[in-house]
Amino acid sequence: MSAEVRGAGGAPPFQVGLLGHGTVGAAFASLLDERADEIERFNGRRPVICGVLTRSRGDFEQILADSDLIVEVMGGLEPARDYLMRAITAGKHVVTANKQLLSQHGEELFESARERDVRLRFEAAVAGAVPVVRVLEESLSATPIERIHGIVNGTTNFILSEMARGLSYADALAEAQRVGYAEADPSDDVSGRDAAAKMAILARLAFGSPVHLDEVRYEGIENLHGDDLEYARELGLGLKLVGTAERRQGGLAVHVHPTFLYSGHPLASISGPFNAVTVESETITELTMSGPGAGGLQTASAVLGDVVSVMTGGARPPAPPLRLTLIEDVESAYYLHLDMTDEPGVLASVTKALGEHNVSIKSVVQRGISEHARLVMVTHPVLESSLRAALEQIGEFSFMRAAPRMIRVIEEEFT
Amino acid sequence: MSAEVRGAGGAPPFQVGLLGHGTVGAAFASLLDERADEIERFNGRRPVICGVLTRSRGDFEQILADSDLIVEVMGGLEPARDYLMRAITAGKHVVTANKQLLSQHGEELFESARERDVRLRFEAAVAGAVPVVRVLEESLSATPIERIHGIVNGTTNFILSEMARGLSYADALAEAQRVGYAEADPSDDVSGRDAAAKMAILARLAFGSPVHLDEVRYEGIENLHGDDLEYARELGLGLKLVGTAERRQGGLAVHVHPTFLYSGHPLASISGPFNAVTVESETITELTMSGPGAGGLQTASAVLGDVVSVMTGGARPPAPPLRLTLIEDVESAYYLHLDMTDEPGVLASVTKALGEHNVSIKSVVQRGISEHARLVMVTHPVLESSLRAALEQIGEFSFMRAAPRMIRVIEEEFT
Repeated sequence: MSAEVRGAGGAPPFQVGLLGHGTVGAAFASLLDERADEIERFNGRRPVICGVLTRSRGDFEQILADSDLIVEVMGGLEPARDYLMRAITAGKHVVTANKQLLSQHGEELFESARERDVRLRFEAAVAGAVPVVRVLEESLSATPIERIHGIVNGTTNFILSEMARGLSYADALAEAQRVGYAEADPSDDVSGRDAAAKMAILARLAFGSPVHLDEVRYEGIENLHGDDLEYARELGLGLKLVGTAERRQGGLAVHVHPTFLYSGHPLASISGPFNAVTVESETITELTMSGPGAGGLQTASAVLGDVVSVMTGGARPPAPPLRLTLIEDVESAYYLHLDMTDEPGVLASVTKALGEHNVSIKSVVQRGISEHARLVMVTHPVLESSLRAALEQIGEFSFMRAAPRMIRVIEEEFT
Repeated sequence: MSAEVRGAGGAPPFQVGLLGHGTVGAAFASLLDERADEIERFNGRRPVICGVLTRSRGDFEQILADSDLIVEVMGGLEPARDYLMRAITAGKHVVTANKQLLSQHGEELFESARERDVRLRFEAAVAGAVPVVRVLEESLSATPIERIHGIVNGTTNFILSEMARGLSYADALAEAQRVGYAEADPSDDVSGRDAAAKMAILARLAFGSPVHLDEVRYEGIENLHGDDLEYARELGLGLKLVGTAERRQGGLAVHVHPTFLYSGHPLASISGPFNAVTVESETITELTMSGPGAGGLQTASAVLGDVVSVMTGGARPPAPPLRLTLIEDVESAYYLHLDMTDEPGVLASVTKALGEHNVSIKSVVQRGISEHARLVMVTHPVLESSLRAALEQIGEFSFMRAAPRMIRVIEEEFT
């Protein structure tokens, strides 16, 4: 009864200043309105929007003065960074969905928030409605994490799902744009850069080490071929854009690559514009969360969850960083695809070049001996640099009909 | 820096009294010890165990007096209920893993905790290391939820996974006991009662309505046949013990049944001793969480997460209840399995009986016309009571060779 009494007792409303009123901002404003009664019943205070800042209306200073909390869904680095820093400095709580900002200026924001003892929440910056930030920061804060794999970009997962149904990359991208899952300029998504920003944030949360977006190695889906997806289907594998953050050689490796996943992997069956994150730890073995990764309403729902979290006194900003060495060159199994003319001795030349770089072949998946010979293989785990060096050498052979292709493979056995 | 300074500044340790020292209690004590440094770095206070109560040692009054928080992992209704009520009355925070207690005396505990403004956390009572309680209470507290489906009993999911590989129920149960996933007396698990307790708790969190264990309809896996799993395999369906809590006809339906799931359903691919929960809402479409559902270390990890949550000032106990009408009789599609002798007119008699009870057949999966005729069908959505009445009538036909069997089906299209 006490919460109701507090509510009825006329506690002042919880004032929310809203920066940005695009798809997410508008969805947030109407969702907040719709859910205000229920939130008040739960928390004793009613959230209300006390001001909205857009390019054409609103005054930041006024909104700041009126607010208990600032929600930033304008995106971009500036003036978002400046507004959030000013809000924190003024002792206001902040909620942001801005992955670019957090993956490039996160430490500055975290440190200021710790100093001022304000809450800084950012669930919507990572995996849409999938509450991976909260689970990492809170449920797993006492759990030593070994590895995170994530499908953290819904646009590319939608495109890959369409390609798995037989569409070309160009047609799948056009379809994603038609249904609103890809923007007119999709480069941030398809290049892997958006996923890289999210993996930088996840790595900070899971391992405590600051990772700047520029320190994340990433590779997109633009160069995938239809036949890569055909192989995936034939072999019962999933082909996904997977971000990984993991302890390696005493340091931390954070990277984003197209990846073949064995069919039982929790991420292999995630299709359409969904996001999913798998957390591996000796203590809990493996935890997976999945859900819609994009969409105004879903993102708005995550933002509102953060606002409620602040109202109930939720978690403090991430602790001061523990800096781990970033490991760039890690071992993995790879799928190799070589198109070549069928001449005597080509196989010997290829295996010799691989052997010289310590690349050992686990299995030959396909070996077409015809005018358009094609060699598809899976390697044992090998350093990426070694494999790239081998492929560079192989790429120069006169019998190669196209540049060699390599795609990371996550196999059933932990490597 | 501030958190470190607070830690170094010599804040007093956070005193944890531990009730119960079985598998989970012992794992918790050693995990807390192992993670105390990291927790102190994060939160500025170091958790320590100030006393342990077992059947043979420890004094509850003394432990209570020394504690900031009481962890209850002894299980059972009494004296666990009494100890927790006394702890709450004394203004101490409590963390419990006790699903029996919460599904039968939850409201009493919640109300006392609200009155005294103490934290009451119980992540480990529902889905082991899968943080569904936190996500429902916090991330989704502003989200109107339509439906929850859960695989919330790892023992039965392991047994069903083994049966899917061809083992009989008896052999699969024996294997579960051999590897430690089932107790010597497995009746609480295989009857569905353990899952029912967890669904009662989830329903309270998702819908705000108190549900007592005795109000949950449940059915276990003891009567499943190997050929039910054969059909599942042939048809590409999963056969799982699924708990459901959902809004229906303006009320709330909570039930646990063996269930066929279409192959794309997020719960269909959950195998082994795992738990998984899917939350459906218009706002977020669908969110799924999965992970290990049992095991001392996993449960201990969830308990420790709750302790840390209390240390950081986490969420308040559930708000006062909103009582919804419990709906017992709900519509669903069903799989029917009829074994009968092959006589003229049997099919006509069966379809007539079904028709009289408004059961309409969607498809006939198998119709063996031989000495051991077998009719396997899937119905359109029908009230459970109607189907049971039809099967009662059919069961009395002289040509029936065994009691008719029905299993719930969740189809791709939302019904």
